[in-house]
Amino acid sequence: MAVKLYGAPMSTCTARVLICLHELQAEFEFVPVDTFAREQKQPSFLSKNPFGLVPVLEDGELTLFESRAIIAYLLEKYKDRRYDLTREGNPKEAALVRVWMEVEAHHYNPAIRPILFETFVASHFGKSPNQSVIDSKRDESNQVLDVYEARLSTTKYLAGDFYSLADLYHLPCTRHLMKSPHADLILSRPHVKAWWEDVSSRPAYQKVAINMDFDAV
Amino acid sequence: MAVKLYGAPMSTCTARVLICLHELQAEFEFVPVDTFAREQKQPSFLSKNPFGLVPVLEDGELTLFESRAIIAYLLEKYKDRRYDLTREGNPKEAALVRVWMEVEAHHYNPAIRPILFETFVASHFGKSPNQSVIDSKRDESNQVLDVYEARLSTTKYLAGDFYSLADLYHLPCTRHLMKSPHADLILSRPHVKAWWEDVSSRPAYQKVAINMDFDAV
Ligand SMILES: N[C@@H](CCC(=O)N[C@@H](CS)C(=O)NCC(=O)O)C(=O)O
Ligand SMILES: N[C@@H](CCC(=O)N[C@@H](CS)C(=O)NCC(=O)O)C(=O)O
Repeated sequence: MAVKLYGAPMSTCTARVLICLHELQAEFEFVPVDTFAREQKQPSFLSKNPFGLVPVLEDGELTLFESRAIIAYLLEKYKDRRYDLTREGNPKEAALVRVWMEVEAHHYNPAIRPILFETFVASHFGKSPNQSVIDSKRDESNQVLDVYEARLSTTKYLAGDFYSLADLYHLPCTRHLMKSPHADLILSRPHVKAWWEDVSSRPAYQKVAINMDFDAV
Repeated sequence: MAVKLYGAPMSTCTARVLICLHELQAEFEFVPVDTFAREQKQPSFLSKNPFGLVPVLEDGELTLFESRAIIAYLLEKYKDRRYDLTREGNPKEAALVRVWMEVEAHHYNPAIRPILFETFVASHFGKSPNQSVIDSKRDESNQVLDVYEARLSTTKYLAGDFYSLADLYHLPCTRHLMKSPHADLILSRPHVKAWWEDVSSRPAYQKVAINMDFDAV
């Protein structure tokens, strides 16, 4: 029985899992959740994820939430196919993959996501973006991306000279960023820009990215 | 050669790693970093962690940052001793450990940590706490902890009826919270309170907690 993923196509957390499913060439069923209609806050969904957020994965009797925990589970389930994504065979490389996965969660995502929220989600609800949030998060993003630029001038990908889960984690937010008026954050940094052109050329990403437009909702 | 941990005793991210080192009964050398004197922003430290934050782990030539990535590395290095913390032998249990590790990182920590910052760090620098931050983060914490109360009324620990890394991740922030004027967030919820009394009785935690006071700095 194929796993079942509940999510929204434009949601970055959903897309993170979808890209991974494609990288693993795993079979799955996708169940769309209308987050703009707040379907994720209904009792039937809250019984799957008490925090009322997408994505959720079901595998038989097992229900999981939190995109990065779902991905860890999928990597274990399809462990014969994951070697290149987590570098399990090499403790030093595997450790660096984890460092840059954590950097995405604790530095990149908190800096970039509010910019995307103000740009796309606020406007979807007819509000104008909060400029002071955008300004302060742009400052934070510039600091974070300066570290990325330095890193990517020494290694081709974030964890080393190999594509890994650490790079994959960054794809969904960066995809929206590149469609926003703030793409300069990436484009103004030659190594970050070259990295983005490389990682965004992967078929697993492209299959997912094509469905992520907000105006398709 | 023992691993070397750079950190500050009252820092929750440092303490997370220290508790894990004690659980694993691993030998290590602790190198104190004076974060109040901004030692972590000096070039020599920035060369270890470009984000200028503690903790940092060195193991021979390998330098790692981000507390949760450091812990993953230590669990791998001491893998003969880690079984009980990550439930590797049982994919379903291991998946739930990861879900609640992610909940700590993405829900608990972002709600609780700003309260601690306003309570302890601001006052350390002679500033008065920002009450509107405290109020909004208390609201957020109440919502998060309602989910914990429901969860802990069905299982003894967060991931199931076993102590795991998911519980361990919560210890440092909760330790400070319990010493703050906001301990009611925990104490007012019977199952969360009972869980805290249980998990905080572990020797590995107690060895670390005793050195975490801010006024010891
Ligand atoms: N840390 C969670 C975050 C989940 C999350 O924030 N999901 C968003 C979409 S990316 C959502 O459900 N938003 C709807 C809402 O806030 O109600 C994860 O990685 O899965
Ligand atoms: N996500 C990082 C966070 C590191 C962090 O915020 N460290 C704090 C202490 S808990 C620090 O170094 N603070 C000093 C500063 O902000 O300059 C981790 O888990 O290691």
